[in-house]
Amino acid sequence: MTGPYDTILITGAAGRLGTELRQGLAPLANRLRLTDRVEIADLRPNEEAAILDLVDAEAVMEVTKGIDAIVHFGGAPLEKPWAEILDSTIRGSYNVYEGARKNGVGRMVYASSVHAIGYHPLDAQIDTEAPVRPDSLYGVSKCFVEALSRLYWDKFGIETACLRIFSSFPEPADRRMLWSWLSHDDCCRLVTAALTAPFVGHTISFGLSDNRVKPVDNTKAGHLGYVPQDSADPYRAGVEARTDPPDPDAPATRFLGGWFVDLGHPDDAGAE
Amino acid sequence: MTGPYDTILITGAAGRLGTELRQGLAPLANRLRLTDRVEIADLRPNEEAAILDLVDAEAVMEVTKGIDAIVHFGGAPLEKPWAEILDSTIRGSYNVYEGARKNGVGRMVYASSVHAIGYHPLDAQIDTEAPVRPDSLYGVSKCFVEALSRLYWDKFGIETACLRIFSSFPEPADRRMLWSWLSHDDCCRLVTAALTAPFVGHTISFGLSDNRVKPVDNTKAGHLGYVPQDSADPYRAGVEARTDPPDPDAPATRFLGGWFVDLGHPDDAGAE
Amino acid sequence: MTGPYDTILITGAAGRLGTELRQGLAPLANRLRLTDRVEIADLRPNEEAAILDLVDAEAVMEVTKGIDAIVHFGGAPLEKPWAEILDSTIRGSYNVYEGARKNGVGRMVYASSVHAIGYHPLDAQIDTEAPVRPDSLYGVSKCFVEALSRLYWDKFGIETACLRIFSSFPEPADRRMLWSWLSHDDCCRLVTAALTAPFVGHTISFGLSDNRVKPVDNTKAGHLGYVPQDSADPYRAGVEARTDPPDPDAPATRFLGGWFVDLGHPDDAGAE
Amino acid sequence: MTGPYDTILITGAAGRLGTELRQGLAPLANRLRLTDRVEIADLRPNEEAAILDLVDAEAVMEVTKGIDAIVHFGGAPLEKPWAEILDSTIRGSYNVYEGARKNGVGRMVYASSVHAIGYHPLDAQIDTEAPVRPDSLYGVSKCFVEALSRLYWDKFGIETACLRIFSSFPEPADRRMLWSWLSHDDCCRLVTAALTAPFVGHTISFGLSDNRVKPVDNTKAGHLGYVPQDSADPYRAGVEARTDPPDPDAPATRFLGGWFVDLGHPDDAGAE
Amino acid sequence: MTGPYDTILITGAAGRLGTELRQGLAPLANRLRLTDRVEIADLRPNEEAAILDLVDAEAVMEVTKGIDAIVHFGGAPLEKPWAEILDSTIRGSYNVYEGARKNGVGRMVYASSVHAIGYHPLDAQIDTEAPVRPDSLYGVSKCFVEALSRLYWDKFGIETACLRIFSSFPEPADRRMLWSWLSHDDCCRLVTAALTAPFVGHTISFGLSDNRVKPVDNTKAGHLGYVPQDSADPYRAGVEARTDPPDPDAPATRFLGGWFVDLGHPDDAGAE
Amino acid sequence: MTGPYDTILITGAAGRLGTELRQGLAPLANRLRLTDRVEIADLRPNEEAAILDLVDAEAVMEVTKGIDAIVHFGGAPLEKPWAEILDSTIRGSYNVYEGARKNGVGRMVYASSVHAIGYHPLDAQIDTEAPVRPDSLYGVSKCFVEALSRLYWDKFGIETACLRIFSSFPEPADRRMLWSWLSHDDCCRLVTAALTAPFVGHTISFGLSDNRVKPVDNTKAGHLGYVPQDSADPYRAGVEARTDPPDPDAPATRFLGGWFVDLGHPDDAGAE
Repeated sequence: MTGPYDTILITGAAGRLGTELRQGLAPLANRLRLTDRVEIADLRPNEEAAILDLVDAEAVMEVTKGIDAIVHFGGAPLEKPWAEILDSTIRGSYNVYEGARKNGVGRMVYASSVHAIGYHPLDAQIDTEAPVRPDSLYGVSKCFVEALSRLYWDKFGIETACLRIFSSFPEPADRRMLWSWLSHDDCCRLVTAALTAPFVGHTISFGLSDNRVKPVDNTKAGHLGYVPQDSADPYRAGVEARTDPPDPDAPATRFLGGWFVDLGHPDDAGAE
Repeated sequence: MTGPYDTILITGAAGRLGTELRQGLAPLANRLRLTDRVEIADLRPNEEAAILDLVDAEAVMEVTKGIDAIVHFGGAPLEKPWAEILDSTIRGSYNVYEGARKNGVGRMVYASSVHAIGYHPLDAQIDTEAPVRPDSLYGVSKCFVEALSRLYWDKFGIETACLRIFSSFPEPADRRMLWSWLSHDDCCRLVTAALTAPFVGHTISFGLSDNRVKPVDNTKAGHLGYVPQDSADPYRAGVEARTDPPDPDAPATRFLGGWFVDLGHPDDAGAE
Repeated sequence: MTGPYDTILITGAAGRLGTELRQGLAPLANRLRLTDRVEIADLRPNEEAAILDLVDAEAVMEVTKGIDAIVHFGGAPLEKPWAEILDSTIRGSYNVYEGARKNGVGRMVYASSVHAIGYHPLDAQIDTEAPVRPDSLYGVSKCFVEALSRLYWDKFGIETACLRIFSSFPEPADRRMLWSWLSHDDCCRLVTAALTAPFVGHTISFGLSDNRVKPVDNTKAGHLGYVPQDSADPYRAGVEARTDPPDPDAPATRFLGGWFVDLGHPDDAGAE
Repeated sequence: MTGPYDTILITGAAGRLGTELRQGLAPLANRLRLTDRVEIADLRPNEEAAILDLVDAEAVMEVTKGIDAIVHFGGAPLEKPWAEILDSTIRGSYNVYEGARKNGVGRMVYASSVHAIGYHPLDAQIDTEAPVRPDSLYGVSKCFVEALSRLYWDKFGIETACLRIFSSFPEPADRRMLWSWLSHDDCCRLVTAALTAPFVGHTISFGLSDNRVKPVDNTKAGHLGYVPQDSADPYRAGVEARTDPPDPDAPATRFLGGWFVDLGHPDDAGAE
Repeated sequence: MTGPYDTILITGAAGRLGTELRQGLAPLANRLRLTDRVEIADLRPNEEAAILDLVDAEAVMEVTKGIDAIVHFGGAPLEKPWAEILDSTIRGSYNVYEGARKNGVGRMVYASSVHAIGYHPLDAQIDTEAPVRPDSLYGVSKCFVEALSRLYWDKFGIETACLRIFSSFPEPADRRMLWSWLSHDDCCRLVTAALTAPFVGHTISFGLSDNRVKPVDNTKAGHLGYVPQDSADPYRAGVEARTDPPDPDAPATRFLGGWFVDLGHPDDAGAE
Repeated sequence: MTGPYDTILITGAAGRLGTELRQGLAPLANRLRLTDRVEIADLRPNEEAAILDLVDAEAVMEVTKGIDAIVHFGGAPLEKPWAEILDSTIRGSYNVYEGARKNGVGRMVYASSVHAIGYHPLDAQIDTEAPVRPDSLYGVSKCFVEALSRLYWDKFGIETACLRIFSSFPEPADRRMLWSWLSHDDCCRLVTAALTAPFVGHTISFGLSDNRVKPVDNTKAGHLGYVPQDSADPYRAGVEARTDPPDPDAPATRFLGGWFVDLGHPDDAGAE
């Protein structure tokens, strides 16, 4: 039994979330094409791999041939020096979208991030139409891809769901994740919803599990059909036992971006 | 054991939804008065029937006597030539509201439709205060009754809940119904909520089951107390197996009204 | 020197505002075709007249041939019995839009009314996207045409500017008109703006002069390019001298519709 | 096992809700300090009591020493003459906030009330940012404390969650409580959420159980992490059997404040 | 020639703005009754004075007899110790509103202040429905009167225009006043508008001249009919020549309240 | 007599708008430093020039030393191949912001563009908080700089006014410019306002003259204090005489971006 797609491309497939998606998305396609800069371990029969750097336009053009949908999780995984952000996320994503356009890919799912709106405070309870307020160069590069993908929908008819993932880890690792956690299973559910929704156009969705503390309002992404089934709350007691309470006056407590707002500039000596 | 009303009038009682309501609303009243243009089968002891055309003002005035609430589901059931829309929905509904006004009926429940706002896209995630954007003459006539009923509340103190029913069928029949379905049971729940809510005034509510994909935001109708209990999702696999995927660029995929936006004008030769 | 149109049709051309428009719109077209139920006096060389009732579908179809734009000011001019509202505004306007559709008219200007939103209070400061709240059957029929024209834009590509005219009279006649007045010249300016705007699509605009007291917010109609140049304020002292102050608790003071909210139902004996 | 606080002060601890909170908040602190004007019965080992009037600034300053959080439920419990409102809520709350400021208390939870916004109608479906519309002097005094606590956050960095409690009783006692009920357990859950939320700043939350009929929209308080678990609906049949249906035209039916909107002025002879 | 009122009461008539209003409002009434705690100089024939403290309920009840409208500018004129704020603004204003209620005064104009919303930043461009964010006890007391007056409209039908005056001085005295200035003449125009508007209900309006830099959006007060005619800009060169540029990072630059946000607590030793 | 700044840097100073700014901003600073890739003609005594490419990080770091404010008008002036957009706008602007950060520049004025929001239709009447909808790679790069500058305010305290310039030309050259025109003088007024506003933080403003047809709502930028003084309307007759009327169904008529929405992809052979 196969899903609605013949071949889905996953970029960043060797990363932590990419690895989860290889399993989670298997039911949706006959074949998963995987790409990353590093080797991808333990290929399954339904998988094929291509090792390449997204900054390599020709390689990306080649790898996006014969693809029905792209789950674009490649790029710098957190705050990095500008040169790396520029190449891996900005230039790399441009190449991916050009590959999609020239090769006729219809739907994209992009791993955007809370860090595109990290300087909004929790008590603003923003929805997905709030202006961007990135908290890092990493976040700025996510804003770039969100804008780029908007163009590719409005002008070229390529759908994209931009998923602003908060904290997707095996389990909540600190107090912030009690409200920012996206379980790996819910991450797969969210990408699955984005791939199977009847209409995506250009949609921005927050990526969060059903945690009790809700920092944002995801109502406007209701047509994706994402229903989280996990929650950070069973982990609460453990997390609180081994971590200190947050300082309510600290920016890292108040803003969605958490400790990213405390980072200096990545190009400064010794930053991060 | 009886409900809060002595006699409820159901118009369009011989229709598909009318038939469901006869059973669903029985607990709410001592007596259901039923009306339709065609014969109503299998009357139960708590039911009385009157066969009439709503365009007949005198008959409507007569049948609305001694009534406590009207569940107004009569009128053209989908896109029809103008002459029919005019008579059955516009003139007919005026007659019903005049009957309510002159006979002292306090609360109305009206079967409005998604087609009153069918030209809004899913990704707009409209709420019930969005401007109307009808997708058909049928939809325009629903807008008319919504406006008429607003007047009858503001000026004459008659409450109306306008229920913008999406797709109320025994089960989801196509891909669109995976997000537009209102189960028959949920339809009865919604009408029941509208009849028993502590305050209705003039309220517009969307009529949808608890489907995973949510095309609109019904928050502003929270005071009706409608809680859907069904979902299209158990039918998803079956529907997807026997239907083609939607074209994301097609207006019928993008807009709430679905295939209604593709209909030509009903008065043109061979329209619909 | 001629305006941008060859032939403009004005319905209701024998009415008070129709008469003003004959002069005001003359610069915009080579020819004005005029229609009304009654004879139109003093035809000018650039004018041609057709006496007909808008409820006569064939006559309307005929008169809308060879027309580039329609300024639709025909229909019941204020609260009337339902039968008259139905024929002159609802059925008549449907005929006009069908004429436009079949004869390829591209742009319509419709004389809607404050009475489509007459039950909103002044202190709500509504904009043009607020839900309708008609104050009369007259207002309900305006809502009908607004919805109908929305359909004809979304489905058939015919542009309409719906102008919610407040009180267009030679000069302010009572206290309410100190904030609801639309001078005859500003009325012509507004229709001219609607006819010459670069893009109308379906736009709703309030129709008010630049009175000091502003009951609504017309910002969302900015693309029509209407700039009022008259004001009721020079008439204030005179009006206040000969009229009583309003009662702040009276609905007619509080609501946009003014004395229309105090009207009973027009079909009741002795109504209005 | 202790909660995140060493000592929590509860004002109004002898009141109905105060009594519930003594039990409900016990897990959150090593010690509960209780204060009220009247004696507090049955002190538990983790409790210490101080009998005082909040209008006594010195006593309040003393009792707020060594406190980590204050749950401020003291003050007039419903509509009262101005002199009492002034002393118990306005002057008393000022004293409490000054105690918090001078003694370094970081977080406050305030028992505000639906009566701060009691003149909004149900069908407005307001959220927590709607302008205040108090329905009583009691409600005005709640607005005062909400404003005062906003200042203490913005200027002095003291967090407050203002909980607009609707009707917190052992069970729903009348028809209105079918939508306004906050169970005692949910009340404790709400206060617990406010005390343990990662960031409060200044947050206003409605206080309601998960009743089927929802009169307001609490989305903007999502970061408190309050999830109600009770509902008035199991009590519905009983309540409806022993009470009359509401009159939809009565202000007490239409407005959030219920019967408070029918109260005269408390300083008039025989008021209330 | 007289205005629309027989007798208007001005509280705080000996203050700077009160003195301006004595002249500015003279055309609106046959008689101005003036009250203040201190002697009022140079009474004109149309004026009568009463020296009293607004905290004296009996005196206020007496002085509000035979009054048609009250322009309530009395109370603490800026940040003061709590005891003074409490007596002069909170208790005093309650007395004024009770006088209005018992003596049948129909319309009030209240001198509220920017300091009721002083913690909103300029770039938020708030409108008059934004939640209050007072910057001082002075501001909190203004919020109290705004809430109190809302109650007196909703429950007792007494209209109030709350005018949030920014900086009303003879001319702009510092850089902030280049955007916060309300000229004395415009102040009189604003109060005049509030006294003569056809419908006030409960309306909040910002009080600003037509300065080039606009810190807030006053659209929702359009029905007052206030049109400022002065501007701070002619004073710009002079002010900039004799003052230092603002520090963009300073709260006093960023927030509407200006230097009030830098004030400590007035009850602390040496505050202000 | 000099303005508030010692030295202002203008990037893109040899461009059409840069040339205008050299004259328009002269009164604001003792010295204008000018930079461009090409030679800058006719240097005045208050000017100094540096020929460099903004993609050259070291050169930019050098030229931003000793600067008080930067008017950043450099970068690709319209749709260009990706490689050029990447270098001149994305990499170049990053260099400029890094120069500002490391050299302590406090305020930036950035030439953003209507093309950052070009896919919004006129009848949406968006304000400056609407989500971006770029119509070209050029527009995407403007979105990037807007996001980047937001970060530099939130994290590094550098103010930026992003001016979304519509069509700044000597005079309106086509029908679209009748609503999109920003006169050269108004362009200088807008930049001057951004440089002299008391508080900018991060502000987005539309850049338009006071044309009669208004496609967007600039209210939220009111604190910049920009008051346009020119209008396209005196040019209307001439423009209309020599150009064809727009097609209302054409995207270039309907969307803010005009003919940019009709451009293909710049990297395709023969694009543009």
